[in-house]
Amino acid sequence: ARPRVGYFYTGRSGSELFSQKLKQIKVKDYQSIPVVVDENVSVYDAICTMFLEDVGTLFVVNGKSDLAGVLSRKDLLRASLGKQDLNEVPVHIIMTRMPNITMCEKDDLLIEAAQKLIEKQIDALPVVKKSEEGYEVIGRITKTNMTRVLVELARDER
Amino acid sequence: ARPRVGYFYTGRSGSELFSQKLKQIKVKDYQSIPVVVDENVSVYDAICTMFLEDVGTLFVVNGKSDLAGVLSRKDLLRASLGKQDLNEVPVHIIMTRMPNITMCEKDDLLIEAAQKLIEKQIDALPVVKKSEEGYEVIGRITKTNMTRVLVELARDER
Repeated sequence: ARPRVGYFYTGRSGSELFSQKLKQIKVKDYQSIPVVVDENVSVYDAICTMFLEDVGTLFVVNGKSDLAGVLSRKDLLRASLGKQDLNEVPVHIIMTRMPNITMCEKDDLLIEAAQKLIEKQIDALPVVKKSEEGYEVIGRITKTNMTRVLVELARDER
Repeated sequence: ARPRVGYFYTGRSGSELFSQKLKQIKVKDYQSIPVVVDENVSVYDAICTMFLEDVGTLFVVNGKSDLAGVLSRKDLLRASLGKQDLNEVPVHIIMTRMPNITMCEKDDLLIEAAQKLIEKQIDALPVVKKSEEGYEVIGRITKTNMTRVLVELARDER
């Protein structure tokens, strides 16, 4: 028999090669632009911003432009059920606030961000960068981004 | 040199093997239980059901239990901004209705459902089965399910 040459068996299956590939994708490769509002805007204005920008999650910043809170559609829907005038309630009253915010950084693995979304049962994470006194919001990573990754990987026939 | 035997070069890379694997996953392998409301319940009650069941999308059914509409958090948030009393407005007024509903079936490829979510910019699809006069809702597939698939594939070291 002729020797087979030129092909190496790496001991790795397709699945394993894939999971290695997936582990090379970073948050920054798929992150979206963040939409932020000031902590003093009203719940009504925040809902309008959410519709205008067509996002499911808003990030709330303080006077120093540092991350102060997160507003999901669920938070805003809950607030809208109340009896208050939504023009009178500032978002800092209803937001999820620091230090209870799950965050990620742009060089984190995408798959770690995906795990956080599942574990914390949230729709989006702020992508942050350490600032002098807090965290600057530089991106947004969502379950939509994760769905897009899956679609692109399925197309990937290289 | 000794011949290398027992290993076959298939001509396929890890990515290609993976995309083949991904193309074997069906909607039924990851679908969730659907939460449905009758088309005559009020918007207020629908919002309460959404919180109680902790889902982002409700499916609306008619008297024959066939799919009649879809309600997203966005639809309910929009309605809650209006001046109407949410107890007085039935969901069939605000829902996305047939035939404008994007659906899938349990034996569809998961990746096709993911593509529909991205293309239509929606959070969930009803998984349906043809009934006598319409479609029975038998499941729900969401961007959360897609995120979970990604996490599980990354864990997959077989």
